Amino acid sequence: MKLNIALLAGDGIGPEVIDQAVKVSDAVAKKYNHEIKWTPALTGAAAIDAVGEPYPDETHEVCANADAVLFGAIGHPRFDNDPSAKVRPEQGLLKMRQKLGLFANVRPTFTFPSLIDKSPLKRERIEGTDLIILRELTGGVYFGERGRKDDGDTAFDTMTYQRFEVERLARKGFDMAMKRGKKLCCVDKANVLEASRLWRETVQGLEKEYPEVEVSYEFVDAVAMRLIQWPKGYDVIITANLFGDILTDEASVISGSMGLMPSSSLGSNVSLYEPIHGSYPQAAGKDIANPLATVLSAAMLFEDFELQDEAKAIRDVVNKSLAEGVVTEDLADGGKSYKTSEVGNWLAKNIQ
Amino acid sequence: MKLNIALLAGDGIGPEVIDQAVKVSDAVAKKYNHEIKWTPALTGAAAIDAVGEPYPDETHEVCANADAVLFGAIGHPRFDNDPSAKVRPEQGLLKMRQKLGLFANVRPTFTFPSLIDKSPLKRERIEGTDLIILRELTGGVYFGERGRKDDGDTAFDTMTYQRFEVERLARKGFDMAMKRGKKLCCVDKANVLEASRLWRETVQGLEKEYPEVEVSYEFVDAVAMRLIQWPKGYDVIITANLFGDILTDEASVISGSMGLMPSSSLGSNVSLYEPIHGSYPQAAGKDIANPLATVLSAAMLFEDFELQDEAKAIRDVVNKSLAEGVVTEDLADGGKSYKTSEVGNWLAKNIQ
Ligand SMILES: CC(C)[C@H](C(=O)O)[C@@H](O)C(=O)O
Ligand SMILES: CC(C)[C@H](C(=O)O)[C@@H](O)C(=O)O
Repeated sequence: MKLNIALLAGDGIGPEVIDQAVKVSDAVAKKYNHEIKWTPALTGAAAIDAVGEPYPDETHEVCANADAVLFGAIGHPRFDNDPSAKVRPEQGLLKMRQKLGLFANVRPTFTFPSLIDKSPLKRERIEGTDLIILRELTGGVYFGERGRKDDGDTAFDTMTYQRFEVERLARKGFDMAMKRGKKLCCVDKANVLEASRLWRETVQGLEKEYPEVEVSYEFVDAVAMRLIQWPKGYDVIITANLFGDILTDEASVISGSMGLMPSSSLGSNVSLYEPIHGSYPQAAGKDIANPLATVLSAAMLFEDFELQDEAKAIRDVVNKSLAEGVVTEDLADGGKSYKTSEVGNWLAKNIQ
Repeated sequence: MKLNIALLAGDGIGPEVIDQAVKVSDAVAKKYNHEIKWTPALTGAAAIDAVGEPYPDETHEVCANADAVLFGAIGHPRFDNDPSAKVRPEQGLLKMRQKLGLFANVRPTFTFPSLIDKSPLKRERIEGTDLIILRELTGGVYFGERGRKDDGDTAFDTMTYQRFEVERLARKGFDMAMKRGKKLCCVDKANVLEASRLWRETVQGLEKEYPEVEVSYEFVDAVAMRLIQWPKGYDVIITANLFGDILTDEASVISGSMGLMPSSSLGSNVSLYEPIHGSYPQAAGKDIANPLATVLSAAMLFEDFELQDEAKAIRDVVNKSLAEGVVTEDLADGGKSYKTSEVGNWLAKNIQ
C-alpha cells in the first residue's frame, strides 16, 4: 500500500516523539512492503513563530490531501501566561479539527501488564480494563457563539448540538461496540441540559437499529466517579466535546501513564493520530520524552487502513520494550533508562 | 443557642438518614444546652406526589425563615426513565438553590483512617488528603437560557457568568484558604471558554487582596487527572457549577465511600447541609442506608454557627463508630453490620 501521511510535529516534545513514530512506521512499512511518503507541515507555536498562524492554510492543504495525519503536540507556556495573547496554539488545534471535520476523537483506555502497578489505582480495580471513549470533537460549547456583554462583566458561551452531529457520532459508537463488548454508554447531563436531552433522544432513536448492543445512559458526574471505581464496567462510551475532554484525561489515570496513551480523531475524508499527552515544554529538546503514545498512535493509523498485522507488530514491539525495560526515565523507576531516540531505534530494529 | 432548622427529608433513603442526623443533633443540643426546633417540609418526588411541585412555596417559606436547612436527598427512578416528564424532582433542587441563593457548594474531601483501604486508590496516594472543592451553585450553564431550534433538531444551553458571581465565590475561596493551607486553585477551561476567561480575570484581580494565598490556575481536564493522581496537592479549589458537579463527584472516590461525604451550600441568608449521595431508591425503606454523610453534614452546620465543640463531638463519635465497627452493611466487609437506625441510636447515645 502507498500511504501519504502529513507529519505535524508541533511544539515542545512533539518533534522528538514524532521522530520515533516515523522510524517505527518506516520499519513496519519496510517489513510489510508498504511505501510511506511523509509530508511535514507547520502547526502550533512553531507555526505562529514562522507565519503568524497556528494552523496555516498551507498546513491545511497538506493535511486535506493526505491519507492520514500524524500529529505530535501543540502548546507553549509563553501563551498560557498571557491572557491578552491574540493568537494561541490551541486555536490551531480547534481550527484543524473543524476544517478537517475530525468529528470523533477515539481514546482507548487499557492497562499494560508490566506497568499496572504504576497506576494510582489498585491492581484489582483496573486489571483487564478495555474501554473506548468516543468524544464528539467538532461541536458543542467548543464551537458555539461566545462573547461578553455589560461592558465585559458578563461572559457567555453557547453549548449547541444538532441532531446529525449526535447521530454521526452515535453510529460510530454503535459500530465500535458491535466489534467489541456490545455495550454502549451515552454520557450526558440530561437532567439539566437541553443539548443532553437531544443526545439522549437521538441515541434512543438508534437503539432499534442495533438490537444486539446493550445501551445505557448515565450522568457525567456519576461517570466521573464510576470510571475510577469500576472502569471494567464500560465498553464504549459516547459523549459530548466538553465532557469527553474531561473524562478522557481522567481515564488516562487508569493506565498509570499519559506517556502511553494514543488516540485517533476520525474525519469523513482524513483522520488524525496523536498521543494524548501535551507538548510538555519542560522536557523539550532533552531527548527524554516517552515516545510510546505516539508510536501507539501510529498503530491505530495502520489499523484504520485495515493493516492489522502491521498494527499488531507495533503493539508487540512496544510490549516487548516494556517487558525488557527499554524505557524512558518516566517508566524506569530510578533504574536504567533510555533516551527517546534510543527507544525509537530499539523499537524500529526489533520490528524486523 | 436557639436554632430553627428546616428539615427536608426528600426521597428514597432521605427520610431514614435524616432521622439519624436529627437524633445526633438533638443529643449534641442536649449536651451543650442548645434548643433545636425542627420544621419538616416537603421536597422532591414526595412533594410532587403531594402538591404537584418539587419545591413548593410553603417549603420555600419554611426554609427562608429558618436558621439553616438540613436536607436528605431527592430523585426517583420513575422520573429518570421518562424523558417526557414535565415536572422532575431535580427541578426542585435547582429552584431551591436559586430561590435560597445558595451560591457556594462546599465539599470537603478527606480520608478516614479506618477506611482508607476501601478507596480504589492506593493508600500512599491519598493518606492525608484534605481538600475543599467550592462549587459555584446558582449560575453557569445550569441557569442560562436553553431551548430548541430548527424543529427540535438543534438544542442549545447557555453558559453564562457575571463578574459579581465569580467574585463572590472567589472571595469565599480565598477566605477559606486563609484559614487552611493558604492555597487556592481556580479550575476552568480558559483556553476555550469566554466564561472561564472572566473567571480567571476576576480571580487574578483579587490576588493582591490576599497576598498570603498562593493562587494557581489549572484546566479542568488536567485537574480531572491530577485530582486522582495527587489529591494531596490541593487545598481549596474554586470552580464553576458544571465543572464542580463533575469534580466533586469524582473527588468522592478518594474517600472510598460516598456514604460518608457531607456538604454545605452557603447562601447569604440561610445555608443548607446535605450528604453528597443521592436518594438511592433501591435501599429506601430497608433501614440499611449509611447515615454518616448526613450526620457529618449536621456537624458542618454546627461549625458554621461557630459551635466548634459541638461539631467536634459529632466527628469524634463518627470516628468512634467506624473504629468500633458500628457500621451499616456498606462498610461491614461482610462482617457484622448494623441498621441505619441502630447506628443513629449508637451515635446519639455515645454523644453524651
Ligand atoms: C488544548 C485544548 C483546547 C484541547 C481540548 O480541550 O480539546 C485539549 O485539552 C485536548 O483534549 O485535546
Ligand atoms: C441532580 C442534579 C441536578 C445535581 C446537579 O447537577 O447539581 C446533582 O448532581 C448535584 O450535584 O447536586
